[in-house]
Amino acid sequence: MSRKELWANLQKHDAELSKTHLRDLLADKERNKHLIFEHDNIVLDLTHEKITDQTLNLLEEVAVKSGVYEGVKKMFSGEKINTTEGRAVLHVALRAQKGEKIVTDGKNVVEEVHETLHRIENFSNQIRSGHLKGKTGRTLKNVVVIGIGGSYLSIEFVYEALRSHPEAVARAQDRKLRFLANVDPIDFSRATEGLCVEETLFIINSKTFTTAETMLNARTCRNWLIEQYKLKGVVCKNEDEIKDLVNHHMCAASTNLTDTSKFGISAEKVFGFWDWVGGRYSVWSAVGILPLSIQFGYDYMDRFLKGAHNIDTHLAKATSIKGNLPLLLALVGFYNTSIKNLNARAILPYCQALCKFVPHVQQLDMESNGKRVNLAGQTLDYECTVVNFGEPGTNGQHSFYQLLHQGRIVPCEFIGFCRSQRPVVLAGEPVTSHEELMSNFFSQPDALACGKTIEELKAEKVPENLQNHKYFPGDRPSLSLLFTELNPYTAGQLLALYEHRTAIEGFLWDINSFDQWGVELGKVLAKQVRTFFQNHQDKSTADFSGTKFNSATEALLSKFVQHK
Amino acid sequence: MSRKELWANLQKHDAELSKTHLRDLLADKERNKHLIFEHDNIVLDLTHEKITDQTLNLLEEVAVKSGVYEGVKKMFSGEKINTTEGRAVLHVALRAQKGEKIVTDGKNVVEEVHETLHRIENFSNQIRSGHLKGKTGRTLKNVVVIGIGGSYLSIEFVYEALRSHPEAVARAQDRKLRFLANVDPIDFSRATEGLCVEETLFIINSKTFTTAETMLNARTCRNWLIEQYKLKGVVCKNEDEIKDLVNHHMCAASTNLTDTSKFGISAEKVFGFWDWVGGRYSVWSAVGILPLSIQFGYDYMDRFLKGAHNIDTHLAKATSIKGNLPLLLALVGFYNTSIKNLNARAILPYCQALCKFVPHVQQLDMESNGKRVNLAGQTLDYECTVVNFGEPGTNGQHSFYQLLHQGRIVPCEFIGFCRSQRPVVLAGEPVTSHEELMSNFFSQPDALACGKTIEELKAEKVPENLQNHKYFPGDRPSLSLLFTELNPYTAGQLLALYEHRTAIEGFLWDINSFDQWGVELGKVLAKQVRTFFQNHQDKSTADFSGTKFNSATEALLSKFVQHK
Repeated sequence: MSRKELWANLQKHDAELSKTHLRDLLADKERNKHLIFEHDNIVLDLTHEKITDQTLNLLEEVAVKSGVYEGVKKMFSGEKINTTEGRAVLHVALRAQKGEKIVTDGKNVVEEVHETLHRIENFSNQIRSGHLKGKTGRTLKNVVVIGIGGSYLSIEFVYEALRSHPEAVARAQDRKLRFLANVDPIDFSRATEGLCVEETLFIINSKTFTTAETMLNARTCRNWLIEQYKLKGVVCKNEDEIKDLVNHHMCAASTNLTDTSKFGISAEKVFGFWDWVGGRYSVWSAVGILPLSIQFGYDYMDRFLKGAHNIDTHLAKATSIKGNLPLLLALVGFYNTSIKNLNARAILPYCQALCKFVPHVQQLDMESNGKRVNLAGQTLDYECTVVNFGEPGTNGQHSFYQLLHQGRIVPCEFIGFCRSQRPVVLAGEPVTSHEELMSNFFSQPDALACGKTIEELKAEKVPENLQNHKYFPGDRPSLSLLFTELNPYTAGQLLALYEHRTAIEGFLWDINSFDQWGVELGKVLAKQVRTFFQNHQDKSTADFSGTKFNSATEALLSKFVQHK
Repeated sequence: MSRKELWANLQKHDAELSKTHLRDLLADKERNKHLIFEHDNIVLDLTHEKITDQTLNLLEEVAVKSGVYEGVKKMFSGEKINTTEGRAVLHVALRAQKGEKIVTDGKNVVEEVHETLHRIENFSNQIRSGHLKGKTGRTLKNVVVIGIGGSYLSIEFVYEALRSHPEAVARAQDRKLRFLANVDPIDFSRATEGLCVEETLFIINSKTFTTAETMLNARTCRNWLIEQYKLKGVVCKNEDEIKDLVNHHMCAASTNLTDTSKFGISAEKVFGFWDWVGGRYSVWSAVGILPLSIQFGYDYMDRFLKGAHNIDTHLAKATSIKGNLPLLLALVGFYNTSIKNLNARAILPYCQALCKFVPHVQQLDMESNGKRVNLAGQTLDYECTVVNFGEPGTNGQHSFYQLLHQGRIVPCEFIGFCRSQRPVVLAGEPVTSHEELMSNFFSQPDALACGKTIEELKAEKVPENLQNHKYFPGDRPSLSLLFTELNPYTAGQLLALYEHRTAIEGFLWDINSFDQWGVELGKVLAKQVRTFFQNHQDKSTADFSGTKFNSATEALLSKFVQHK
């Protein structure tokens, strides 16, 4: 049976259900009871989705027939489900607990994971305690992480999520953690601005140690090290002295020990990972855990791993979508995308500390599931995932929410917390600042779902010519995730939930969510532009002899060469 | 003639043109020549859109018949085109040059604008020079802008765009500019972290001085002032002393002189604006120019106003879409949205300094044009604007570009610069870091448009089972904007281009782009949640007597009260 045939019952069901306004669905207490789920103090509220318990039954059927449970099982057991690259997909092994066993290619990878974690623990403790110092004996208080994509977005998300958490504040003391991702030299200038070279450690995150942006930035930072030290009177007289300097101030998360060594980094400062760790899952490996452990302490980040592991176990043991949060998130996402044909989703954390969650989820989801062929390579007759976007609430309310309420229909995902990391209780105010924030979190889903009728507007004596402008159609779906508080453990849970959601949606669409061939072509074409620039270092007039650009690109390149 | 009837010729044209792959359109040199436009050293390249010169002719016809030129004229001449609120839309007056004349309600507003600008110039010079000091005589080196939506996003965009510009670096010396937007107390903790109270000035941005988030944050900051001074031994003994303290450390952009005075801010520290300045255009008023002038100097920000004015004049004088950048941007945006039915657009600045451009454009565009009724209040039979999203390149390439190349079709807008604000030339590298960045800027549009065929993959000996995975369909539209460099003048041009694009698209869709009724309902519903919280300050069990929540919201509120 084709996927679309598999979805036929759901399509019929939706055609019927669409006739009932969400406002009316929400009035049904019995229905609502079946759509609120809880796991380990996380509440997933699906009452504001355009579904009923019966929808979940039909989705369960689709999940079973699409092989979702087998997919999950294969992933957890180390099967090579990334078929186009011949790799296992084992980020869950990165957060497996000591003593657990996950075997791939005949090896229990959990042992290797914990060996590396142990090395990260030691190394980060040594940096934090000042035991490992910079070239001139100063404590390494600043860390700049050089990496792009998964080697950047995920770490920045976690750093932002935790840096205002009181325990994290105490642990970070006067440490700085910064990121250098973009090859744009403006990013380099911002990442290194005001840093004392003697107190700065660079971490180069690149599995292959060949990522173009990361390696150019790494070389730029190595040069900065040498030049900054020179300004302080410490001059490197030969290659060995450069390597010694580099080895004091640079380390790496990479599997390419040959190239890291050539670069000047000794083996004990290189932290490996495995080909079954995809870039967008690498925060759980040395790529993320190393810099975050230096900033906050390894034992603090261990709770982050434990939070994810909690969700892993929750999913691995699932026998039904009901009550299983990642399965429910995925099935409802799939329903909105493939059955209701909605083409975007807004992720709206009511928490400023989650300001970098959405950019990471964009990568996680759109790189994983922005695909056009199934596992067998056949062109799909349906579209897969949607544009994921969002900003923290309430900021977004003063920005794009106008469209969410009165423009296109975009399913929304509200994320909130019962307690604030940094509560403010101001004398004379009716509620705390966090409650003021959460007043909005609780009201937006109702505003989207119920809307406001012309009758209500008339009752409020709104002038007739304004009634249609002030009318809210409602009937707009959303879901809410409510956590108790944002800490390393719940940050781990949140991220694991979204990771699994994406993977499960991929199983439903019968695609490989773990490759990313679509990013290759741009890189290849950039090479010929680079060569063209190389041939124009001292020219202000473009010469296209021997090149293969179309006339449009030639015209634009000419302008560039003229003004550069 | 209905709008849809007006678009019939374009629909037919598109149906025909869709049959030709963009790869083939791009091979036509004659076509390409007609699709590259230039104004004041800005190049707009439309060759990679799925259009020809004939498309532009048909779009011109639609522009004329939709009253676009009249719309522009009405806007510039101060007519009350924001009909639902009975207001003129005159942000162009904020950047009009001294001596120009724009009359609305019988007044030449340009005079008033320049009076206020003159006050901003004086005040910011006095702060910068240390003539106006804090309570204890210290120079006010830190500015925290309190505002949300348009009173935040636009200013942060400009600040980020300019803060690495060498001249701006020199002008900012050791000044700090920060933003407090979110009512989430985490944002307050971050905005004030590490600031010396004696050197800190708060600017409260709220036209009515009633915006809920902004006023709670303003009260929180006033309390912080008092408490921080107390810690330093400066204790306010009565209301007058508090007002004196506040008046030293707080000023406002607002029109509500009564409430600013009650708050403790004297009239000479309140900078007014006008009801014809929409929130999303307020960066050009005191809301933006005041903090940015304190940070970088008024004369520097004057260039920002001049850049926008350049685009205003360019648009005001337009007699044809051809060669007019805002008209072309709008018409092509409209074509992709309403004729090709694409439902998102990715805005991709190849410049790290534009990291906050997209969040601002999201507001500008989605709040303006996320509408469902026309000016007359009739429900539209078409959808208006799309989801705007994006991240700076090359970062985005390692994130969501997979979807852009092999997933859904999303028109892309590439923004690049010939010269970097902070060039890096590293010895031994084939090209500069900025050229490395721009290699990608120039190659992505070709990758999207031309794709990669199965024949090419076969020629590269890609194994048959991988060919479909590595196949790029191409035929994906994009446009490119190339500027010489990013400075206050071009930042002003860029923003004005996007502002006018949005307004013109609104004229095409026959909607009011200048109101935002859709943000009201959520605020109203938040009130009842606030009251509920107020009644539960010391309770951990929810009591819903007298409330009107549905059972779903009750369930979630119960959890919150239990765990708060």
